[in-house]
Amino acid sequence: MRQALTLAESVMYITSPNPRVACLIVRDGQLLASGATQMAGGPHAEVMALRQAAERGLEVAGSTIYVTLEPCSHFGRTPPCVDALVAARPARVVVAMHDPNPLVSGQGIAKLHAAGIPVTTMVCAAEALALNPGFVARMTRKTPWVWLKLAASLDGRIALENGQSQWITGPAARADGHHWRARSCVVLTGSGTVKADDPQMNVRHVDTARAPIKAIIDTRFEVDENARIFDGTRTWVFTSHNDPAKAARLAERNVQVIEMPADGARVNLHAVMHWLGQHDVNEVHVEAGSRLSGALLQAQCVDELLIYTAPVLLGAGMGMVCLPGMENLSDAQRFQFTDTQSVAPDLRLRARHIDRWNALLQAVQPPNANPNH
Amino acid sequence: MRQALTLAESVMYITSPNPRVACLIVRDGQLLASGATQMAGGPHAEVMALRQAAERGLEVAGSTIYVTLEPCSHFGRTPPCVDALVAARPARVVVAMHDPNPLVSGQGIAKLHAAGIPVTTMVCAAEALALNPGFVARMTRKTPWVWLKLAASLDGRIALENGQSQWITGPAARADGHHWRARSCVVLTGSGTVKADDPQMNVRHVDTARAPIKAIIDTRFEVDENARIFDGTRTWVFTSHNDPAKAARLAERNVQVIEMPADGARVNLHAVMHWLGQHDVNEVHVEAGSRLSGALLQAQCVDELLIYTAPVLLGAGMGMVCLPGMENLSDAQRFQFTDTQSVAPDLRLRARHIDRWNALLQAVQPPNANPNH
Repeated sequence: MRQALTLAESVMYITSPNPRVACLIVRDGQLLASGATQMAGGPHAEVMALRQAAERGLEVAGSTIYVTLEPCSHFGRTPPCVDALVAARPARVVVAMHDPNPLVSGQGIAKLHAAGIPVTTMVCAAEALALNPGFVARMTRKTPWVWLKLAASLDGRIALENGQSQWITGPAARADGHHWRARSCVVLTGSGTVKADDPQMNVRHVDTARAPIKAIIDTRFEVDENARIFDGTRTWVFTSHNDPAKAARLAERNVQVIEMPADGARVNLHAVMHWLGQHDVNEVHVEAGSRLSGALLQAQCVDELLIYTAPVLLGAGMGMVCLPGMENLSDAQRFQFTDTQSVAPDLRLRARHIDRWNALLQAVQPPNANPNH
Repeated sequence: MRQALTLAESVMYITSPNPRVACLIVRDGQLLASGATQMAGGPHAEVMALRQAAERGLEVAGSTIYVTLEPCSHFGRTPPCVDALVAARPARVVVAMHDPNPLVSGQGIAKLHAAGIPVTTMVCAAEALALNPGFVARMTRKTPWVWLKLAASLDGRIALENGQSQWITGPAARADGHHWRARSCVVLTGSGTVKADDPQMNVRHVDTARAPIKAIIDTRFEVDENARIFDGTRTWVFTSHNDPAKAARLAERNVQVIEMPADGARVNLHAVMHWLGQHDVNEVHVEAGSRLSGALLQAQCVDELLIYTAPVLLGAGMGMVCLPGMENLSDAQRFQFTDTQSVAPDLRLRARHIDRWNALLQAVQPPNANPNH
């Protein structure tokens, strides 16, 4: 299964909005064939692996098939994979996690059982979920999985008092950040960052056949129409200010302006997340200033932190997130460190929101093991 | 040699002001005997190992002897170890690093050479130095090796705006911090921390036969005589304010008050560090508020950062270090991450001052390889 997870990781950048899935066909400890999900509309992992076995003239019947997600049981852009698996007559199927898609949700496994094929499930489920938190989040809670990328000094400064922020972290950390942009469906920023830094917010330093959509939270629709982020690739602007003429001009540059209800002085961020979920967005990479970052945190919209920390103490300067003063330390949202990586000279720290991760883990349990199902 | 380094690590808490050193006697890949330096005044590693070999009735002549520091060549509290080694007639001696003590400084190796014993040096030198940065710093630059311990949120807050700071990091991080107190010669804090938190600043959670001395930077000598830190164990107060009566009262509680020149509004921190070096202090563990921590950094007195970071973002609150605003990011002192350790639920990050570490590494090179020698 670990080999299958590694293979699924190899298609990290391309499968969205479909989950990253891999399938291995094994007999007597020998790998016969393997496959991973292709770009949306292309074949799923199971079909890729079965095709490869056929091309090699190898018999699948009697083998063990490993798949990192429950095989689909419905007609989507492709026919149900489970039918292809049943037809291949494996001796056994091993599944990492259940598919929380309401169109599947145990029916893939049930079909295998009904065909008399023994199925083992929940093998490396947490690792499998880590490949597809966005897909599972969208299927279960109808909003994407959101990570907040921040780059700061050890004492949490993202800029000096004079605003200088280029560069606290090094080129390797910046390049690494592009991998996270590349795996996301949407790179989200704020109008303040667009105004201050005029970033491109696209994927560089990474080869990828699929580019994430760019999105801006711009409550008062003040963004400069000539900002570099409007480079002709698909971009969304979420605003609470109606300006059809500006929206029409931007539309010519592949920009869609989406009006959202306001929540006080800002676009309602929950409404944005639900809109994104409805528009097939699995994963959101947030790269914004301390105000939008803080507002997303405060609105409980941040599922994961992706923090690059530089080995330097700056003292005075801009903080990572604007949050209102807390009365008690126990009021703070608790995350859990998951992995720490040297990205010399900096460190990359990741931490997940404990409760929201556990909710996803619960959602990929077998239906009968899930009291909330 | 790695085995010797591990053995030297086992006496981390007790040898000060002597370096932590271990010695292994090996023949044909078999360990005959081993020893580590004992408490000051007790035998050094080489003598401990030779004694063990004698007790076991094993012949040392012709063996290979590994030692993590150049054997001493002078009469201190004990006779020169190099004479004992020569008398034992090993076939070869392997040394991790040279002893920068001006009383040794190559003479230990020279004596072995003169006795016709081949010597290999600089084997795992950086690892050996990491066991004794304070000893090497004191021998070469006359001041101790200083680390700054800080516990903060991911966004660098050590307290909420209302001052609440207990606890941002968890009990495991606090217990881990006591290991660092235990290995130090001096635990240094400021009068502000004594006033705000009334800490004991002693070693708990760790079994150790040697307790570090406690020290307070208290420029105006305002410390409360009934503070818990004055528990009858040896404590130093560095001040620029002369109050003999208060000093005399504190002396009865094992407190030595040391008058220091002022440097603006604060005790001259360089003077404190030199005084500590003159008083056999190898390693200083600083656990202070953001003002003293910042002042030590600004005075270039911090050699290493020891940071416990909690997986939480607090937004508003107290920063880790008070430093004057910088004009340029390039003005910041650069550290280098050395190791990252999970101390669940927190992380422990260590980073060394690059230039000051490299200066020590240079100092433990063989004399002829060191152009500054």
